[in-house]
Amino acid sequence: MNLDLSLYLVLDPVQCGGHAGSLAIAQAALEGGVTIVQLRAPQWHKRAWLALASDLLPITRQFAVPLIINDHIDVALACGADGVHIGQKDLPPEVARKLLGPRALIGLSVADEREVDDANPLGTMIDYVGVGPVFDTPTKPDASAALGIEGVAALCARSLHPTVAIGGIQLSNAGHVKRAKPGGIAVVSAICKAADPRLAAQQLRAENSRTS
Amino acid sequence: MNLDLSLYLVLDPVQCGGHAGSLAIAQAALEGGVTIVQLRAPQWHKRAWLALASDLLPITRQFAVPLIINDHIDVALACGADGVHIGQKDLPPEVARKLLGPRALIGLSVADEREVDDANPLGTMIDYVGVGPVFDTPTKPDASAALGIEGVAALCARSLHPTVAIGGIQLSNAGHVKRAKPGGIAVVSAICKAADPRLAAQQLRAENSRTS
Repeated sequence: MNLDLSLYLVLDPVQCGGHAGSLAIAQAALEGGVTIVQLRAPQWHKRAWLALASDLLPITRQFAVPLIINDHIDVALACGADGVHIGQKDLPPEVARKLLGPRALIGLSVADEREVDDANPLGTMIDYVGVGPVFDTPTKPDASAALGIEGVAALCARSLHPTVAIGGIQLSNAGHVKRAKPGGIAVVSAICKAADPRLAAQQLRAENSRTS
Repeated sequence: MNLDLSLYLVLDPVQCGGHAGSLAIAQAALEGGVTIVQLRAPQWHKRAWLALASDLLPITRQFAVPLIINDHIDVALACGADGVHIGQKDLPPEVARKLLGPRALIGLSVADEREVDDANPLGTMIDYVGVGPVFDTPTKPDASAALGIEGVAALCARSLHPTVAIGGIQLSNAGHVKRAKPGGIAVVSAICKAADPRLAAQQLRAENSRTS
């Protein structure tokens, strides 16, 4: 499936009001222009992940947008998702590639120069890197220290892979993040918690494609 | 691999003092007569699971004892473990069987009559059920209410699958648990926290095979 990182929605069902709320927000966000969706439900058991991912897939497929599963390769295999996003402490990229096959989209989180330098020689083992956190964020309390715009810019320039900036990105700061020249921006609460997720996605898309 | 539930060690690396401690305790417990080992590290990220499981496998293989991975089918696939143990909220048994194939050992936790009745028609989709908790236990704070000996006896009698009793079993009460007639007993701290894990396993084996 085509990889377009422009506007990357990390869907946290706890922030979206559960299973049904997540489906509604995903639908609205896709209508608003989200180009890739990741399911991340660290507080949920896997049976609930599987149920939600299985219900999300027909929606994301309708928009020809990939659905990525955070961390759990087994959930991705079980539902036939389009790929996984893994952190530095999750199963390694080569394991993910082996289990998911050559067509899966695999993303890897990087938070410093060393992690970018380790990711660069991986070549097609991974499809993109998530660079962050840009700003401090309450969404992920175990995240490393914020990189800031300059830090993200340095890592994006250093990376040989497509990049998506993540961590505390809201409509109000998305324009600044563009200065770091990432391939795209990832948001959680900016859409999941928006009064109108469709409009929020539209505005983020517009902000993202505006000439700075 | 042959399934013998007689003395089932649930290896929690946090209780065992980490990676190296877990390997030492597993080795000693296997020398003492443990017949099956499950790795369960709910506080750990998967890269650490994979590293420990990969180092455990040569040890369990030496004793021709299966190594089972709790919950994470992807970790089991990645290291080539002998099977998985899943709870009622983990990926369903049919998914585990599909991903792991016909030779994998698959265990399912059951805590009441309904869960046993749901498990019975699964036939060879699963290999055994874990019945518990027998007693209240601090090891698993999210466990359901203790079944007691009578409760475990009723569920073991009701199950069409081989059974292993779990939850708060120590050397001091293992003799009582026998009265519930499970196929075996599972322990965590009784071995992981024992001053001499080899001796603890030997004593539990002896208690288990003693005529009541």
